[in-house]
Amino acid sequence: MVLDLAQIHALLPDAPAPASAQASLRIHGVNTLELARETDLCFAEKPEQAAAVEKSGAGAVLVPLEFPELSGPFLIRSPRPRENFFRIAALFGPEPEIRGIHRSAVVEPGAMLGEEVAIGANAVIAADVRIGDRCIIGASCYLGQGVTLGNDCIIEPNVTIQRNCRLGDRCIVHSGAVIGGDGFGFHWDGTGHRKIPQLGRVVIEDDVDIGCNSCVDRATLGETRIRRGTKIDNLVQVAHNTDIGAHVILVSQAGVAGSSTVGTGAVIAGQVAISDHVNVGAGARVGGQSGVTKDVPGGATVFGTPARPMKDTLRELAALAQLPDLLKQFRSQTQELAALRERVQTLEQNRPK
Amino acid sequence: MVLDLAQIHALLPDAPAPASAQASLRIHGVNTLELARETDLCFAEKPEQAAAVEKSGAGAVLVPLEFPELSGPFLIRSPRPRENFFRIAALFGPEPEIRGIHRSAVVEPGAMLGEEVAIGANAVIAADVRIGDRCIIGASCYLGQGVTLGNDCIIEPNVTIQRNCRLGDRCIVHSGAVIGGDGFGFHWDGTGHRKIPQLGRVVIEDDVDIGCNSCVDRATLGETRIRRGTKIDNLVQVAHNTDIGAHVILVSQAGVAGSSTVGTGAVIAGQVAISDHVNVGAGARVGGQSGVTKDVPGGATVFGTPARPMKDTLRELAALAQLPDLLKQFRSQTQELAALRERVQTLEQNRPK
Amino acid sequence: MVLDLAQIHALLPDAPAPASAQASLRIHGVNTLELARETDLCFAEKPEQAAAVEKSGAGAVLVPLEFPELSGPFLIRSPRPRENFFRIAALFGPEPEIRGIHRSAVVEPGAMLGEEVAIGANAVIAADVRIGDRCIIGASCYLGQGVTLGNDCIIEPNVTIQRNCRLGDRCIVHSGAVIGGDGFGFHWDGTGHRKIPQLGRVVIEDDVDIGCNSCVDRATLGETRIRRGTKIDNLVQVAHNTDIGAHVILVSQAGVAGSSTVGTGAVIAGQVAISDHVNVGAGARVGGQSGVTKDVPGGATVFGTPARPMKDTLRELAALAQLPDLLKQFRSQTQELAALRERVQTLEQNRPK
Repeated sequence: MVLDLAQIHALLPDAPAPASAQASLRIHGVNTLELARETDLCFAEKPEQAAAVEKSGAGAVLVPLEFPELSGPFLIRSPRPRENFFRIAALFGPEPEIRGIHRSAVVEPGAMLGEEVAIGANAVIAADVRIGDRCIIGASCYLGQGVTLGNDCIIEPNVTIQRNCRLGDRCIVHSGAVIGGDGFGFHWDGTGHRKIPQLGRVVIEDDVDIGCNSCVDRATLGETRIRRGTKIDNLVQVAHNTDIGAHVILVSQAGVAGSSTVGTGAVIAGQVAISDHVNVGAGARVGGQSGVTKDVPGGATVFGTPARPMKDTLRELAALAQLPDLLKQFRSQTQELAALRERVQTLEQNRPK
Repeated sequence: MVLDLAQIHALLPDAPAPASAQASLRIHGVNTLELARETDLCFAEKPEQAAAVEKSGAGAVLVPLEFPELSGPFLIRSPRPRENFFRIAALFGPEPEIRGIHRSAVVEPGAMLGEEVAIGANAVIAADVRIGDRCIIGASCYLGQGVTLGNDCIIEPNVTIQRNCRLGDRCIVHSGAVIGGDGFGFHWDGTGHRKIPQLGRVVIEDDVDIGCNSCVDRATLGETRIRRGTKIDNLVQVAHNTDIGAHVILVSQAGVAGSSTVGTGAVIAGQVAISDHVNVGAGARVGGQSGVTKDVPGGATVFGTPARPMKDTLRELAALAQLPDLLKQFRSQTQELAALRERVQTLEQNRPK
Repeated sequence: MVLDLAQIHALLPDAPAPASAQASLRIHGVNTLELARETDLCFAEKPEQAAAVEKSGAGAVLVPLEFPELSGPFLIRSPRPRENFFRIAALFGPEPEIRGIHRSAVVEPGAMLGEEVAIGANAVIAADVRIGDRCIIGASCYLGQGVTLGNDCIIEPNVTIQRNCRLGDRCIVHSGAVIGGDGFGFHWDGTGHRKIPQLGRVVIEDDVDIGCNSCVDRATLGETRIRRGTKIDNLVQVAHNTDIGAHVILVSQAGVAGSSTVGTGAVIAGQVAISDHVNVGAGARVGGQSGVTKDVPGGATVFGTPARPMKDTLRELAALAQLPDLLKQFRSQTQELAALRERVQTLEQNRPK
């Protein structure tokens, strides 16, 4: 993939006409200002980056309209350089590493593959799996009986998707993730924990990403559901029978316990724990490492373990920082009060009868 | 699998005799009240669920003896509907997806397989592995040299069990789990961290479950041991040389550091960290996200970082919520005290000589 | 591997000459004092261990020069018994389980393998991979296009290393780890989270260990870098564009968010979260479960969420333990102050006009 300046400008509808002087520019890739070579495109957003742009070995740099003039890389001005940069960068994204069905892949009878499906080496596709058009299944993946994938999904190498789970269109599942593991349910029968059979499934809607080594457990009965557009980072736990709303962000190492719900557009920061049977409202924001033990209203911002309104927790933390001093002051005030009491007693004893 | 009403009643020794009117009922599966169809069995425990039962499309619902009469699904009354439901549900559990040794599995010379063992596609069984009767080894699993499995174990796809580790009977290891990774041990030699060889193994007793993507590290020397009946959720870390007692519950994303012990029947909630060389007593309960830094007595309930008796931590948290107000009140009290001191001084100056 | 006493002494340059009486000793392995048999070597460091040494079934025990004389196993005295023990123990470490290229491994055209490389069963080596001399690639690993490994690396079974990532010499990557997953980057376009293409790579320098099921994400642009000698435990998250310095320790379940840096020799304890765009200085120590939200100076020890200097956090925690009592005392002091105010008022009303 090589783009010249005219082609780049054609991708920037909001940029002024190109300078003819740089008609010979050829862009082969994108990079950071520090690492770029003369065939790379970069971007800068702030005037403070002018020196870094000037020093950069890049061939061209996308900058805002008001960016200073300078020697160095060719500047391409547009109102939204960051957004434009990533739109162009996507064109330089990696080609799919695999095409067609690798000779070593195991595709069991009864599996139905759409058009232009690619399956990597040593992947295992069980019976009755349905894979939509243009899906890419990485090396050594396992798709269990009855799994259904929509169109244009990317399943990275070493992913496990267990029986009967269903994914929508354009989902990405990153390496090591496990979809459809058994929910963690037991009952104590007096002598041991007995496993409650986990008979439900996982339903993942369109445009959902699941990060590396994350786990989404199947429902005990019914469904664990992750709604459209939700993005899940690495090492996240999503327990059985949860309902994760649309366009939610679940940051790395967060966990959502059984039967809880997370509303549309909520943002759950890293290492947050959400207890079981708790509802986090739409648009709520949960600060890093919080422990959510009861319902969070829609739109609320909470923090701490147990999680409370962010401003309350911060107010308490600020107060806590003053507590060691308060303890000292309180002790000295107690002494002052005692001293004053004595003086009052003296006055009382001496007052005119 | 299809059950009629007489067969279901035969499975419920504590239920009254069946109503002949529903002799034609045919149950093909189990489900939630919301999702059930006329061939599904459900259960309800509380009278408050009566409306949900009445609306349900289920063919039959297990309910308590005292549940209200209603139109809708056929009601099957028994003293313990939940327990009975899951006993029946287990009969509808998934058939094993694999039988026999898949043609693509690699079984190295010297491996000994019991009766009726199933090995999935692309699984790798190293030399000198011993697998007990009726074990199921999922696709793409790796069992290292000298691994030993008891009878009736289920190893889900993409599990790694490394050299010399030993599992008892009826263990379940879920996808992505790693048993027998090296313990995290180094010594600083003045120029770098040098690896301490990890020469021990992992011993897992009977009836233990290990969740998806959890890790149980081998001992430096000797054994890391997980005792019988213990259930471990997803993404849990069990470090080298730990001893996890019988019937323990380790909830998702908890971690137990090196050489620590957890006593019989303890319950360790999600995202708890237990420091190294710490002993958690039998029957102890550790609240979510706690950080256990010193021994916990048997039967104790602890919470917080560092973990203290739950009631102390809760009392402190309640007090902390009052701290911002206390600071204000203290400042106003300081002013009142100063004012009073002045009034006393005035009295002292004015008192009769 | 069998060592006699003379051979062991030859490995201990700082130990006195061997006692001829035990010339017949034959050591086949190493073990703990509790589990050792007569062909095993053990070590003890403290005089308090004398009874355990005496009871041990070991053939020989490495002890300090000043250790008491006792019956039981033969004692080998040297100034640093622990260090010497692990030097000898390394000789008894497991032989590599695999040699050569397994017949079931998939090595795509264009991959370049060094001398004496071993590749396990069902491993997949994509095109243009370069593997240095004496590397061992475990069963079912996936190495994506353009991955480069230095010499003497050990990649345990079921590891994923994605396109273009680069490892130095003598790295160890444990089972289930994922190197080069996409960074977690999205921009909201008004209707959904749009994926920012992740076009950078991961560079891992020499002598780095990555634990089981840990994740190191590729950079958006440029590099995620882990510098030489750093050791990463299990289930750790290292996000995109981070720079982890040399000889760092990252303990289990810790997470470092995007674009943050950790300085040389820092120690990050278990379940710590480091926010994005934060710099942790060289030699800093971060206590377990801390949440680092702003820069940590070099050499500092911090603790808590948000992380503050350890001594401040401990002082606050100690103060917090006194807070419930303080609240009671404050209330009684408020009453005392009111009572005193009344007494002063009485004095004022009664004072001589």
